[in-house]
Order: sequence, then C-alpha cells, then structure tokens
Amino acid sequence: MIDIQSSESLSSFAIDRVGVTGLKYPFIFRDIETGIEQPTVGAWTISVALPQERRGTHMSRLIERLHEQSQQAWTLDLLYQWAETLAAPLDAQLVDIKVEFTVFRTVYAPQSQKPSFLEHPMVFQVQTGPKPQKIMIVDTFVKTLCPCSKAISERGAHNQRSLIRAHLLYPVDSQEVSFHALAQLVESCASSPVYPILKRADEKYVTEQAYDHPGFVEDVVRSVAQKVVGLEGLKGFTIEVTNYESIHAHDCFARVTWQSPRHPDVNVSG
Amino acid sequence: MIDIQSSESLSSFAIDRVGVTGLKYPFIFRDIETGIEQPTVGAWTISVALPQERRGTHMSRLIERLHEQSQQAWTLDLLYQWAETLAAPLDAQLVDIKVEFTVFRTVYAPQSQKPSFLEHPMVFQVQTGPKPQKIMIVDTFVKTLCPCSKAISERGAHNQRSLIRAHLLYPVDSQEVSFHALAQLVESCASSPVYPILKRADEKYVTEQAYDHPGFVEDVVRSVAQKVVGLEGLKGFTIEVTNYESIHAHDCFARVTWQSPRHPDVNVSG
Amino acid sequence: MIDIQSSESLSSFAIDRVGVTGLKYPFIFRDIETGIEQPTVGAWTISVALPQERRGTHMSRLIERLHEQSQQAWTLDLLYQWAETLAAPLDAQLVDIKVEFTVFRTVYAPQSQKPSFLEHPMVFQVQTGPKPQKIMIVDTFVKTLCPCSKAISERGAHNQRSLIRAHLLYPVDSQEVSFHALAQLVESCASSPVYPILKRADEKYVTEQAYDHPGFVEDVVRSVAQKVVGLEGLKGFTIEVTNYESIHAHDCFARVTWQSPRHPDVNVSG
Amino acid sequence: MIDIQSSESLSSFAIDRVGVTGLKYPFIFRDIETGIEQPTVGAWTISVALPQERRGTHMSRLIERLHEQSQQAWTLDLLYQWAETLAAPLDAQLVDIKVEFTVFRTVYAPQSQKPSFLEHPMVFQVQTGPKPQKIMIVDTFVKTLCPCSKAISERGAHNQRSLIRAHLLYPVDSQEVSFHALAQLVESCASSPVYPILKRADEKYVTEQAYDHPGFVEDVVRSVAQKVVGLEGLKGFTIEVTNYESIHAHDCFARVTWQSPRHPDVNVSG
Repeated sequence: MIDIQSSESLSSFAIDRVGVTGLKYPFIFRDIETGIEQPTVGAWTISVALPQERRGTHMSRLIERLHEQSQQAWTLDLLYQWAETLAAPLDAQLVDIKVEFTVFRTVYAPQSQKPSFLEHPMVFQVQTGPKPQKIMIVDTFVKTLCPCSKAISERGAHNQRSLIRAHLLYPVDSQEVSFHALAQLVESCASSPVYPILKRADEKYVTEQAYDHPGFVEDVVRSVAQKVVGLEGLKGFTIEVTNYESIHAHDCFARVTWQSPRHPDVNVSG
Repeated sequence: MIDIQSSESLSSFAIDRVGVTGLKYPFIFRDIETGIEQPTVGAWTISVALPQERRGTHMSRLIERLHEQSQQAWTLDLLYQWAETLAAPLDAQLVDIKVEFTVFRTVYAPQSQKPSFLEHPMVFQVQTGPKPQKIMIVDTFVKTLCPCSKAISERGAHNQRSLIRAHLLYPVDSQEVSFHALAQLVESCASSPVYPILKRADEKYVTEQAYDHPGFVEDVVRSVAQKVVGLEGLKGFTIEVTNYESIHAHDCFARVTWQSPRHPDVNVSG
Repeated sequence: MIDIQSSESLSSFAIDRVGVTGLKYPFIFRDIETGIEQPTVGAWTISVALPQERRGTHMSRLIERLHEQSQQAWTLDLLYQWAETLAAPLDAQLVDIKVEFTVFRTVYAPQSQKPSFLEHPMVFQVQTGPKPQKIMIVDTFVKTLCPCSKAISERGAHNQRSLIRAHLLYPVDSQEVSFHALAQLVESCASSPVYPILKRADEKYVTEQAYDHPGFVEDVVRSVAQKVVGLEGLKGFTIEVTNYESIHAHDCFARVTWQSPRHPDVNVSG
Repeated sequence: MIDIQSSESLSSFAIDRVGVTGLKYPFIFRDIETGIEQPTVGAWTISVALPQERRGTHMSRLIERLHEQSQQAWTLDLLYQWAETLAAPLDAQLVDIKVEFTVFRTVYAPQSQKPSFLEHPMVFQVQTGPKPQKIMIVDTFVKTLCPCSKAISERGAHNQRSLIRAHLLYPVDSQEVSFHALAQLVESCASSPVYPILKRADEKYVTEQAYDHPGFVEDVVRSVAQKVVGLEGLKGFTIEVTNYESIHAHDCFARVTWQSPRHPDVNVSG
C-alpha cells in the first residue's frame, strides 16, 4: 500500500511540531518522594519535529508506543528517558511529549485533622533534541485576603479562591521536586490553604488565619518566587497567581519569571 | 438533484429536536424597558421537531431564515413571534430556538460613582407548538459572605464571588421583566454587588457592606426566589446560586424551583 | 460553637437541592459485566433537598461520607445503595449524587487488530426519596458520513467525528447495561467506529466502511433509539447525536426521547 | 485613606506582569481595509510590569482607562498607540494588552452564492516598552481531506473540520494585514472553506472540491506558511493547524514558526 507520508516534501519549511493532541489516555503518576502510584487520566500531546525534506509523520506510531507503556508509572524523569528512546523508532530528531492530569494530595483540616483529598492539576512536558528540557507544572488552589481591604475597612476584608501555577523548568540531569513539597511551599505563601473538608472549628481557624495573613496577588507571587528560587537544580521558572476576585466578576493575576544565571540560554515561557 | 432528506422514514421514532447548534451569529439585544439596542455575539441552537414519517430536515433553511434577520434587534417576545412564523416555511410543527449571549449593564461604584460595564451572560429560549413557552435566563455575579464564618470567628469572615442564575419561564402572552430590573433585584439579595471599577473608598464600602449582610447559599437562593415570585406573568422559575468558595477548591450551590398555581402543567427544569 | 445552619428558616421556600459541586475526587469505576475496576477522576455533585423549615445543610458532612468510601469501586447500583444510606446521617429526605468521569475501553483496529484505549466520558446520577431513579450517561465518539453528500457528489462524501450521548434512566430495582455492550451497540449505528490507533490497512477499511454506511444525524439517532429501546429494565432514555460538521464551523444535532409505557410518570430530560 | 499598593517592596523580584484578566468588556473591531466597524464582546487582559521596588499596582485604573475608550473602534495599531499613552498615567514602564473576540466575515456559498456570516475568533495583543510588539491572531475554520485515505481507499476519503490559527507578529511601525485577506489566503490552503449556509448544489461542490484537493495537516500548515511569509512587514509568525479527525476521538496538529531575518531577536511563541 502506498506510503504518502514518507514521500518527499517540496516545501521550504521544516515543521516545528507535528503529532496528536487532545488524546485522553490512562496516566499513572509516581510520586518521586514516596514512590506511591496514582492512576489518573492523561490528556496527551505527543509530537515530533519534521525536517524540511520529509512530507509527513506516522501519527499511529506515536500512540502505539504510548500504548506499550500502559503499565508504566511516570515521574518527570522517566517520561524524559522514554522520550529519548522514541526518537529513533519515530525517525525524529526531536520528541516533545506533554501530558496534563489531575492528582490528589491528602490534606488535614487544621483543627479537626479530618483528612481529605485536594485536587492538583499538573502537567509534565519533556523535549529531547538539541535543546532538551523537562517541565513540571503544578496548580495549587489557595485562599488570599486583600491587605488593602483589611487596612481601610472597619470590619471584614474581601478574600477569594486563588490559583497558584508553578511552572518549573529543569535541565535533563536534574530531578524534579516532590509535588507534595512544592504544594506545601506554595500554600505557605498564601493567606491560607484550602481544604475539601472543614468542620466549624476548622472554618474559624482558616478565617482567622487568612485575616491575619493578608497578601496582594503581587505579594503572593513574589513570596512563592522567593521560595521556589531556592529549590535545587532548576534552570528557570514562571510563577503565576490568579485571584478569582470576590468584589469583581473578573480576575486579577501576577506573574514572575526567573532564569538561572547558570543557564542563561533558557527560554522560560509561562 | 435528489432530495434525500425529504424521503420517507421507516423508523418508529419521531425526533424531538433536530437542527443546528454551536452556531456563532450576530445577535442584537433590545432592552425591553429602554429600547436601547446592544449588538453582541450569539451562540445559536435552532431546531425543529420531526414527525415519525419524515426522514430529515433541511438544516440550511434554518440559517437562511436567521440570516434574513441580521438587522433585527430582539426582545424575548420578538424572538417568539419570529419562531411562530418559521413553522410553516420549515414545514415543522414545532420550532425551538435558543440563543446564548453576553450583555453589559452600566453600574456605578457605590461611593465614587465611577461608571463601568458589568457583564451578564444571558439566554433567550422560545418554543412554539402544542406547549409553547418563552424562557429568559439571566446570570448575575455577586459577592456572598458566610454567616457561619462571621459568627464563629473573632475577626474576618470568608467571602467569595457567586453566580446567581435566574431561569424565568413565561407563557406566550406575558412580557418578560427588564434584565436591568431583574439584575438589581438579584443583587439586592446578595451580601454585595460586584463592580468592574472600585476605588479605595468603594472597596471599603463593599467590604463593610458584605460583612454586614452575610448570607448562606441557601439564604440567598430563598431571598431571590421570594422576590422573583412577585414578578408579573411568570409560569414558573428556577433560581440557582453557586458560590466559588474561597475556603475550598470546589463550589457550593443551592436551587429553588417554583411553578405558578395558575400553570400547574408547567415543567420547569433548571 | 454556634450552629447557624441548624437554625430555623423563616422562608416559605423549600430548597430543591443544596450541596457541593465541581468537587474533583477519586472515582473507581467497576464494570458491571466483568467486575474489572478502573480508577479514574470524578467530578462530583452531592446534594440534598432541604425542607422549608431548615435554614441550612452541613456541606462538610457530604464530603466526609464520600471520603470514607475512597476504596469503594462503583457500579450505578452500588452508588444508589450508598446514597440511600446517606439520607439519615445527612438528615435529608432526598439525596442526589452525580459523578462525571472518563473510562477507557479497549478497542481493536479492524484489520491490524492493534489494541488501544478509547475514551468514554460517562455520568452516574442517583436520586433517592419519593421519586427514586438511577441515570447512566455514556458518550461514544463515532464517525458519520452524509448520505446526501454521497448521493449528489461524483466523488467523495463529507464525513466527520460525531458524539452519541446515551442517557439511560433506570428504576431502582433494575440493573444498568454494561457500558461495553452499550458502546458496541451505539457504534454499530454510526457510519464507522473511531479508534486511537489505525494502521494504513485499517484506515482504508474505516474509510470504505463509512462510505458504504452513510447516515444523517436523524438516521443515526433513530437507529440508536431503536436498539436501546430493546434493553432490559429501562424506564426511559434520551439519545442525542452531535455531528461536528466538516463542511461547517457549527454542529448539527438530533435528539430522541422515550419513556416506557410501564413507567408513564417518568420525566426524561436530556 | 492609606495606599498600601504604593508602599515599598522588600522583595528581590520584579513582577513581569500584573493586572486584570477574564474581563468581559465591549470591543469594537475596525476593519483595517474597509473601515467598517463591528461591535463585539472582548475578553480583556490588561497588565503592566512592576519594578522590584514597588509593592503593587492600582488595578482599577486599568479599567477606568478602558472605560473611557468605550466608543473607540480598534485596529491593532490603534490599540498599540493607546497602550503607549497609558504607560505614564499607569506609572508603568511596560503595558501589555490582550483582547480576545469573535468577528464575522460575509462568505458566499460557492454555487448558490447565498451569503452568510462565518465566525472568526481573533486576538489583538500589544506590548509597549523596551521590546515593543503587536500580535494579531486569526482563527479560520476549514475542511481538510486526507491524501493517504484517498490514495489507499477504493471509494471515499476521510475528511474533517480543521482550525487554522495564524499568529502574526508585527514591529511597531508595520500595519497588520486585513483579516479578510488573511482568511481568504488561509482558506485557499485547505481542502475547502466551510460555510454556514450550503444548499445542495453547494454541498456537491464542496464535497468534490475537497476530494480534489486533499492535504495532510503537514501540507496545510506548510502551504499557509509559504503564503504568509510573503505578507508585508512581518517580524515573524506561528501557523498552527488542528484537525478534528473524523476517524479518531483525538486531534492531529502541526505547527510552523518563522522569524524574519531582519528581526533576528524576535521570540515567536505560538
């Protein structure tokens, strides 16, 4: 049967990325610290770079390789190592894999100590080739309380759910931070963590805790950046905080990007 | 050219609705109170009921009819009247039209009186045929503050952005309420309205106003229901309030449905 | 500590539903046919009806009960049984639980027999109380090819990805159909199934299969309805087919609703 | 009243961007070619860079400035010019404005010449400061037909709706291309345009046209790139094509990025 994809291209353009996207496929997350495995659902993008002279790629091969790994539990580093082994069978100079998934972290209500599972949307992205890199994105929901509102009001202060996105860029030879450790670090910069289960004593605690620790979106993003910059092995990061403002129908956000002086080439885009 | 859609169906099933959906087309909203016209973007669903013996409908005709009305500004009633005129040309016993759009309402910051435009997602839905009805849905963003948190905490109280959805069902011969009037009525049941622009004096006002008017999601939904039930001409309604909880990563909601004793047949589904 | 939620309500409105929504929590799906368990991520809505005289519900209890069931694998019936046990501890006359999740089904490419996992978005919804019911929604992606385009064109025919949503309503004492069996039944009504992995021989097969089995959105929805009506134990159903039209930027859809003559009271809303 | 935002920051981090996002506000699009104005709904992000020593920005000022421009119709260049005037009143070295909106283009069915409005999601983004730039993103829905499927199958060929995103980067002193011209250029690279209204003769035409002009996602992205590279005044671009595959439940995509040799510093990120 004719293989058109393998025919020659007359275009003067190489293709930066070509592949599959929006592919829902099982994903098993392995906690790098504890080794505990968490089966979840991945939304995969698997792509390659295509040189100027090649007309097309064989998309089915991307998913065949993924299917063979159905039982694999992934850390960021294992995903990178696997991507490296794919270049040859996919006849590609560069393999780019991104998987978005949700993991759960056990949290304990601050007074009753009731346990529950808090969701964290996450992303693993790895890229082989001449500029190899590994990216881990961890989303953490928190509570923020406005310092201005507190300072100018005789009672109360507006507060809201916020999302803190930590986008961490690693060189190939560094190991990523544990998502548990990162989430705790991030939460410590907000007015308060959030919890699925709060009994009344916990609600009182969280309310007062938030009131006692106000922070602008600018304060929180800087505080997270200050802590993340101390993590080992990073090439760079982007921290973005979004406040789902309780006094507006729109959101506020702030973003800080940093690149390690030891990796001046890095291109960090949040 | 052969017309397969018009051929006979051998199926024993009539089709409740068949048509187009997800169709982005211009929509001009006419304020029923002031007559002011607001051009916006509609996401249209236009469908008909198809009797058992007919194989298919001619989808293109639905959009041709819509295109002819490009310059029309719509109230809910005008949309219903137009739907009635479509039944014959579309050879349908029942026409069902739904359009989702966003309108803006001028609001004034409570102290500085700074004007700004607040978004309201809305829906118009009309259905002709044996059970004719007109539905208007208006979404209003507000602020709610938790009475429990306020009562048990020594300082502060958690609060958040909330969405109040009013789903109003009208008989064919009633006129819908002005969306301005409805939005103000809805806002008055929350801890505070929200505003795009708030200067510091306004922020102080909103913070204290919310602190002084706490309300559970249950309180707010009942308060809105109590006011909406007094509107003229309604067959029924569903009010739903969703709190984007600032102490959780999930939301809370409450829903009240009511049907007029004068329209006992009505099926209100939120 | 004061318990405001338990205080009396002065409102004249009972609350149809109040609870939590948008709660991401682990969900283990148990295949009713094979017993195989599939861990996945649930988006939960857990709510109760609140009588007129009660001011509020205790939301944290809903999640505490859910957390206790973390190790449970769920069929629709097990979820219903659990909901029934919740009414007393939640002090509610009616418990309504809805969970949305994605499961995977192994499919085999039609010629190469290459296995892969096909995603199926699903919903389980159970409601206790005076009108108890169980709902299972299964989404199946398929391919449809237009009979009109085929008939009038000298070569080719437009075709597209379609989504078939089967919304099945069960009485309390019936067992739901296996989602595998349902998915195969649904796929057999389309122009062709879709597959994550297709080698060239498979692609040829699927292309010709679809060309030989054209179907309007009206044909497909009726064909599915005709087969689903033969399933055992149903109270009613809604079948909805949406075509992501390849010749338009909008979609087409058709919907058929049916209620069993043995359950004339049923209110099926898709 | 105390102005906390204006106080000093002790952080060692400057903030790349801080501002409002998800703000729905009216937007009037002015066609650069015809001058015709199209009122639509914008989703705005307005942000500034904040130096290390400043604690916070005054978010309300961003929206006050926007509100003053309610009657303004915008080209990309007018938006840039306005952004430049904002730096001083916002006390910011850099202003970054992004607005997402939907516009409509009149298209004519290829045989019947029936007119209808086709939606185009668009983005305008402008950035002042040391690296000023203007970005225009235009999304165009088209139809693509698979050359492999056509070549290996005895009849038919799978085809689908596709989305072509053209992300064009302009230097400050260049004028953007007309979105009409760009959309036509993009459509000419697909197997066929799509249309809201197609009568049977049109459907036949589109079906055969697509069958006669097959193209892989790789072919289409290269073809668009080849044409876009000839547009005047560009600093760079990213073209991305996404096929909503009719034989899969997932999508395929390809992306080409180009930077002008006259602007070697440019950082184009799709």
